[in-house]
Amino acid sequence: MADKVLIYSRFPKTMMARFAERFELLDTGGKPAHEVFSAAELGGIRTMLTAGGSPLGAEAMDLFPKLGAIVCYGTGYDGVDLKAAAARKIAVGHSPGANAASVADIAMTLMLATTRRIPVADQYVRSGDWAASKQSPMMRPQAGMPGRRIGVYGMGEIGRKIAARCAAFESEVGYFSRSKYDLPYQYFPTLEALADWSSVLMIAVRAGAGTQHVVNADILKRLGANGYVVNISRGSVVDEKALVAALTDQTIAGAGLDVFEKEPHAPDALTALPNVVFAPHIGGHTLESHVAMQNCVLANLSAFFEGKPLPYGVKSA
Amino acid sequence: MADKVLIYSRFPKTMMARFAERFELLDTGGKPAHEVFSAAELGGIRTMLTAGGSPLGAEAMDLFPKLGAIVCYGTGYDGVDLKAAAARKIAVGHSPGANAASVADIAMTLMLATTRRIPVADQYVRSGDWAASKQSPMMRPQAGMPGRRIGVYGMGEIGRKIAARCAAFESEVGYFSRSKYDLPYQYFPTLEALADWSSVLMIAVRAGAGTQHVVNADILKRLGANGYVVNISRGSVVDEKALVAALTDQTIAGAGLDVFEKEPHAPDALTALPNVVFAPHIGGHTLESHVAMQNCVLANLSAFFEGKPLPYGVKSA
Repeated sequence: MADKVLIYSRFPKTMMARFAERFELLDTGGKPAHEVFSAAELGGIRTMLTAGGSPLGAEAMDLFPKLGAIVCYGTGYDGVDLKAAAARKIAVGHSPGANAASVADIAMTLMLATTRRIPVADQYVRSGDWAASKQSPMMRPQAGMPGRRIGVYGMGEIGRKIAARCAAFESEVGYFSRSKYDLPYQYFPTLEALADWSSVLMIAVRAGAGTQHVVNADILKRLGANGYVVNISRGSVVDEKALVAALTDQTIAGAGLDVFEKEPHAPDALTALPNVVFAPHIGGHTLESHVAMQNCVLANLSAFFEGKPLPYGVKSA
Repeated sequence: MADKVLIYSRFPKTMMARFAERFELLDTGGKPAHEVFSAAELGGIRTMLTAGGSPLGAEAMDLFPKLGAIVCYGTGYDGVDLKAAAARKIAVGHSPGANAASVADIAMTLMLATTRRIPVADQYVRSGDWAASKQSPMMRPQAGMPGRRIGVYGMGEIGRKIAARCAAFESEVGYFSRSKYDLPYQYFPTLEALADWSSVLMIAVRAGAGTQHVVNADILKRLGANGYVVNISRGSVVDEKALVAALTDQTIAGAGLDVFEKEPHAPDALTALPNVVFAPHIGGHTLESHVAMQNCVLANLSAFFEGKPLPYGVKSA
């Protein structure tokens, strides 16, 4: 009989196909597990697959007395209470770096699409406004990439890939992270100093309790009227209300957002703004990064059922 | 009295402001010059400023008996009949390289926006379809940049900048151009061979009589069902009817287009397609590239009126 894996979050079936070949999947479809499966079925659950951003605290863990491993699909694990997991001797795994290039690429895509105003440009051509020589203030020339100061917040694998890509665009690159690294980019000791210097703030920090709303009204004001925010990390890092205000009164010029505070919801006040480019949390969504993330999930699940440590484990808090 | 310059094409007034400080501008607003100015006014015209893509043949030149220099705003001069100009001892100037980074950046922007489907993604979030968990086949994961084979057609200044940027995205880069250069990219001796190899064809060739419709149905078929075309050169290089057909029947996956055969018109059959990202010929439109192009124009005009050779001259055909 195949080992059982609870699918705790809502995932498309296609993303689960490779796991279904090896394990018996109990798929909640994102609903509370006890609404979908009997207590007897859940009592035997030893491991679950979850989206790292889905809240998973002590109370939820205690619903599964035999739970031994929480495996996150993707690099993030910010929804998992690591202390609670450690206290219960539950291992936590993820897919480190598997989607780094894909996420860095969506950061670049959003920055370029926002500064060059691609959705507006696309609509300007499609609508016939271009053919009719209609004025479009949004289509006025903007600053380009050469010489642009791009501040990368967070210098993990994704931040480094963003920095390397920006350098190829002849931009200046600076960064703030907890540690200074041996990298050819200017280091800033605070996020405030980075925001003062930057015209684009690329948010690539690993989200957690310590990063909640750190990109706030003050940071946005420091970016200034020609400044842009690109967020491909987690919605929680940005004070979304402050962002809406800064975009509305043009404290900053624009934003490119792949993540939001309450996904899959983006507030109406935000989606009504013309100077933002939106993506529905597709940073990690390329064919190759799904394969790479699935490889990590499979390796974690197989190791767990063989009684071995998770090869892609998260260090406990 | 200030030297006179005829503004032959339609340009926004803001783009002409620096020239107006130095010269007396006779602005046609893009209309036939003789409809706007008297024969006496035009009889004395010695130089004109034009958009390089605007048709300017022998007949048009002969309307200005004293014409000594045609100065193109931008890098292109494909609209100017160079043989006719040479026969009349009319110098032709342009702005070489001034907008190369800006144009290379729009190529990258369109490639990323097309392969990651940014206009569709933006609308998916704005419309509330994401929040409502509506299916969106266009949002399915696509191949990403690492390992993607990008074929650059034309290895001038723009092509080189595109290639360098693509390399930073961990893509493989190949190219076809008349000459093989000492560059770290795979050279293909024909456009056909490049298209066979590529999944993205970046058209960065200098347009002219020899490049008319060279990207035709055969080349598109060679790109294949996962292939993309990005054109930031001139609309004339692509057989637009063949492109519409290839996009409609999914011979190729998509396209990113900044240029069109008959600007500012993009055919309805093209603009109706969901798998294309459009821009209204904004490749060179950044603040810095306008300044750089204007520097070239000013240098060319000043030299002409001082009786010197154009510092940014086009070699005669």
